[in-house]
Amino acid sequence: MKDTFGQSVSLTLTGESHGAGIVAVLSGMAPGIPVDEDFIAARLTKRRPAGAISTARQEGDKFEILSGVFNGFTTGTPITILIRNENTQSRDYSEIAVTARPGHADYTAQCKYHGFQDYRGGGHFSGRITAGIVAAGAICTAALAKKGIKIGTHIAECAGIPDRKFCDIENEIDSLNEKLFAVLDDEAGAKMEEAILAAKNEQDSVGGILETAITGVPAGIGEPYFDSIESRLAHFLFSIPAVKGVEFGAGFGFAKMRGSEANDPFRIDETEKFLQKRTTTAA
Amino acid sequence: MKDTFGQSVSLTLTGESHGAGIVAVLSGMAPGIPVDEDFIAARLTKRRPAGAISTARQEGDKFEILSGVFNGFTTGTPITILIRNENTQSRDYSEIAVTARPGHADYTAQCKYHGFQDYRGGGHFSGRITAGIVAAGAICTAALAKKGIKIGTHIAECAGIPDRKFCDIENEIDSLNEKLFAVLDDEAGAKMEEAILAAKNEQDSVGGILETAITGVPAGIGEPYFDSIESRLAHFLFSIPAVKGVEFGAGFGFAKMRGSEANDPFRIDETEKFLQKRTTTAA
Amino acid sequence: MKDTFGQSVSLTLTGESHGAGIVAVLSGMAPGIPVDEDFIAARLTKRRPAGAISTARQEGDKFEILSGVFNGFTTGTPITILIRNENTQSRDYSEIAVTARPGHADYTAQCKYHGFQDYRGGGHFSGRITAGIVAAGAICTAALAKKGIKIGTHIAECAGIPDRKFCDIENEIDSLNEKLFAVLDDEAGAKMEEAILAAKNEQDSVGGILETAITGVPAGIGEPYFDSIESRLAHFLFSIPAVKGVEFGAGFGFAKMRGSEANDPFRIDETEKFLQKRTTTAA
Amino acid sequence: MKDTFGQSVSLTLTGESHGAGIVAVLSGMAPGIPVDEDFIAARLTKRRPAGAISTARQEGDKFEILSGVFNGFTTGTPITILIRNENTQSRDYSEIAVTARPGHADYTAQCKYHGFQDYRGGGHFSGRITAGIVAAGAICTAALAKKGIKIGTHIAECAGIPDRKFCDIENEIDSLNEKLFAVLDDEAGAKMEEAILAAKNEQDSVGGILETAITGVPAGIGEPYFDSIESRLAHFLFSIPAVKGVEFGAGFGFAKMRGSEANDPFRIDETEKFLQKRTTTAA
Repeated sequence: MKDTFGQSVSLTLTGESHGAGIVAVLSGMAPGIPVDEDFIAARLTKRRPAGAISTARQEGDKFEILSGVFNGFTTGTPITILIRNENTQSRDYSEIAVTARPGHADYTAQCKYHGFQDYRGGGHFSGRITAGIVAAGAICTAALAKKGIKIGTHIAECAGIPDRKFCDIENEIDSLNEKLFAVLDDEAGAKMEEAILAAKNEQDSVGGILETAITGVPAGIGEPYFDSIESRLAHFLFSIPAVKGVEFGAGFGFAKMRGSEANDPFRIDETEKFLQKRTTTAA
Repeated sequence: MKDTFGQSVSLTLTGESHGAGIVAVLSGMAPGIPVDEDFIAARLTKRRPAGAISTARQEGDKFEILSGVFNGFTTGTPITILIRNENTQSRDYSEIAVTARPGHADYTAQCKYHGFQDYRGGGHFSGRITAGIVAAGAICTAALAKKGIKIGTHIAECAGIPDRKFCDIENEIDSLNEKLFAVLDDEAGAKMEEAILAAKNEQDSVGGILETAITGVPAGIGEPYFDSIESRLAHFLFSIPAVKGVEFGAGFGFAKMRGSEANDPFRIDETEKFLQKRTTTAA
Repeated sequence: MKDTFGQSVSLTLTGESHGAGIVAVLSGMAPGIPVDEDFIAARLTKRRPAGAISTARQEGDKFEILSGVFNGFTTGTPITILIRNENTQSRDYSEIAVTARPGHADYTAQCKYHGFQDYRGGGHFSGRITAGIVAAGAICTAALAKKGIKIGTHIAECAGIPDRKFCDIENEIDSLNEKLFAVLDDEAGAKMEEAILAAKNEQDSVGGILETAITGVPAGIGEPYFDSIESRLAHFLFSIPAVKGVEFGAGFGFAKMRGSEANDPFRIDETEKFLQKRTTTAA
Repeated sequence: MKDTFGQSVSLTLTGESHGAGIVAVLSGMAPGIPVDEDFIAARLTKRRPAGAISTARQEGDKFEILSGVFNGFTTGTPITILIRNENTQSRDYSEIAVTARPGHADYTAQCKYHGFQDYRGGGHFSGRITAGIVAAGAICTAALAKKGIKIGTHIAECAGIPDRKFCDIENEIDSLNEKLFAVLDDEAGAKMEEAILAAKNEQDSVGGILETAITGVPAGIGEPYFDSIESRLAHFLFSIPAVKGVEFGAGFGFAKMRGSEANDPFRIDETEKFLQKRTTTAA
């Protein structure tokens, strides 16, 4: 629903890159979930690395929780997080008022909002708005962790340089969440950083692929017909500026497989009477 | 929202593979749009080819419009399409009541619905339910065509065999919509059919990639933050059983590009004062 | 959302009075709830009394469950109920194509749907469409009853004739649900029926007030800010054609009370430490 | 949807009475609508009269627009309004942590939120939260006014004292919107103020009835089946704490009318061929 994503638990996101601030409303969280503001701050810092691998503009990452948390716990009423915008250089963008940059929303926003959009720094369409997602997400990931659900992401590939694959997901997830540059193989990571800086020096940038693992999710989560986990995740991921492809499991790799190769292997549990090992392929 | 997708215009989908029938409710269409039942029938036939390239079970494709169309035009009230299930072989599936097939929803449905699900023929999770999507989609595509928006899909790859790429999209879309086996290069198509039949003879199946082109969409369509066209399309596509990856434009190919290569080229129209050719790359 | 009401559990309603039929989609019911088709039939009969107190047209009340119920239990997938329209007299309504009746949707539908609406018998705006609500509601009330929640309605007033008030709600609810003409005092009910018939003989009709009691609802149900039970119930009730006012508790009677009289009395339970009897009025 | 009301245009409301502040997110407003902050301020002042007719606590009404407005016009992206809470007396409410006041949400919130709710000053369930509604509403009413739609409310009755009825709605609406105490007959208004103060001196309060007139709404607004204007308005109105009844037109007065008396009179426009004066009553 446009500015809001989700139903039972939903996220509403507002704000312009050079406006007063970004607001994230996280609605539907149960009462009594502990909220750790240090953890939120750590996640916001991770989003905006202090090193050389960053954009020229330094975004502040101070945030304020305006509602929905009382004495350190969620109240069950909506949680509002405000991240003020500071350190903006509004004069950088005067040319945008008459020029559209390729690969940005300048032109399409002009078509859609007829010149009334806040064009400074990309306005509401800037990557900066994701700061609200990170803050709200920090509250969610902590809540999920208490239910035994863990989420970890590594840079599977960057500038054509591959990271190694997951081989011990549970422990690797914990390690990834500690790192600032999220790779499994630190040597590959060092090469990636070099490639990023090399491109930056040429006033250019590189592309990459992120791979996320989620453990502890019980079977049966997701809602047919239209709200499977894959549909919901893809919907949200494509909302992040610059995401252009999403795949699950072998993804596009399935295209070259036979059905007999492609199926999810079942792990047989002898106590599960319903699940029996089939000897023939399904029609 | 689970059984319903969309807001201003929405599709609600119900039915089990071996139940009485599938129902699609198409809500929010404006009044006065002509509805051509022959066109809907043609699309349902295209979904279920009469030749050898099909599943063993012959689904009937008769449909009945129960509401929302009067004297051949949409009324503006919700449109209900009923597709009765005929020619079902319920005895084929007795084993499923105690056995879960890999690559199907049998096991996850058992976890979610605790044995109360209609397991016959995949129940509500069968590919058969897409018949409702095709019927409702036929009404939508005809309406979009009147607004100059055309949609065409070809099998970009199947069993590893590639089709050629689009080179004259407007005309190729029309041609694809006429064909029963949607490829641009009929020779490649013949090889694909051979590969499908070869796999079938081994009681196996193959994978593939579909590529869709949509022309005539005005600039500015889509809603930030969470309802971009890419988000909405991906959400719907991942609802189709067996879809495991979605990408737009160069998709995963962007991962290996520099930013300077990746940007959408603008076509310069001299009368558009807002859009000027930039000489330097965006930061 | 227009044709759909509700979120976790929702009802989608389609159909025109003289079209093929009415469809109700009840979505979100948990799996494993028993569905008693005789009970649904009884409720549909109650909606359309066989006696003299009815409209000239006899609506059939046969229904068919197309999905979502298997072996007598809900599957957890959406339930579709089809009620075919029979016994329609389409020639009665030819004049409506050019004439708008006061107190009906003829004129407003013409403004909204520009002549494309199905005008016969009131089309989609006819009271007939409530048959779908009654059928779906029968499934819901049975499910609620299993959770100890009972619902009963009586005609509190009709043609100015009052029924007596509730004095033993639990038992009176059961009794009301058995009766065809839902009053607590049968003598008052007889007078009401006379008044209805007298008006009918003059080709006129009367108005009235219904009063509903719901017992067994646990404290805390409802969602601030915008989805309290009162908001949700009122929203639905005003969707029923001819409803023009909704009040809760003393309703409009509160207008003449002092705050000290108006407050809900608490029943003190000695074990509830949180709840203490206050001696002074709240500020 | 809980914390959000509406679809194409929606309002999300957050905040606790003694928390940092109240936030209202107004989503879906078209770009290019002028936003007059003085008008918003005037409406917030009207909500909280400076005179003796007020609650003991003085709420500040300073607000800040954090997003969605640029150079005095709506951008088309979501508008966020922050109203900080100042001048709170948190020590007044320590007793509530263990005592539930009748006529307040203290007890039901305890049941629903298990003690994690912010109980101070009524928390998220306080009438204070309506400040966010008033601020967002000011933007909406100004936009509607530009489309020729005007809204005016008067106190139809208070403490049993009636105001006179509308007799020249267009001009009376303008006059009501100028007044601080919204009555049509100032003498009746003076009596009402006396009654309010008399009750206040006894640490009590009075009830009343508001009547709202809306002019300029085109025919056809509202969505069957479930989103008529009456359903939508009632849903929103019952969200306001203390509202216990809503009626339209003659409302509960219809109960005593014959159908022949009850119908909306049509104003006949000779150019409207569709609309003809009927000579007989509808069946």
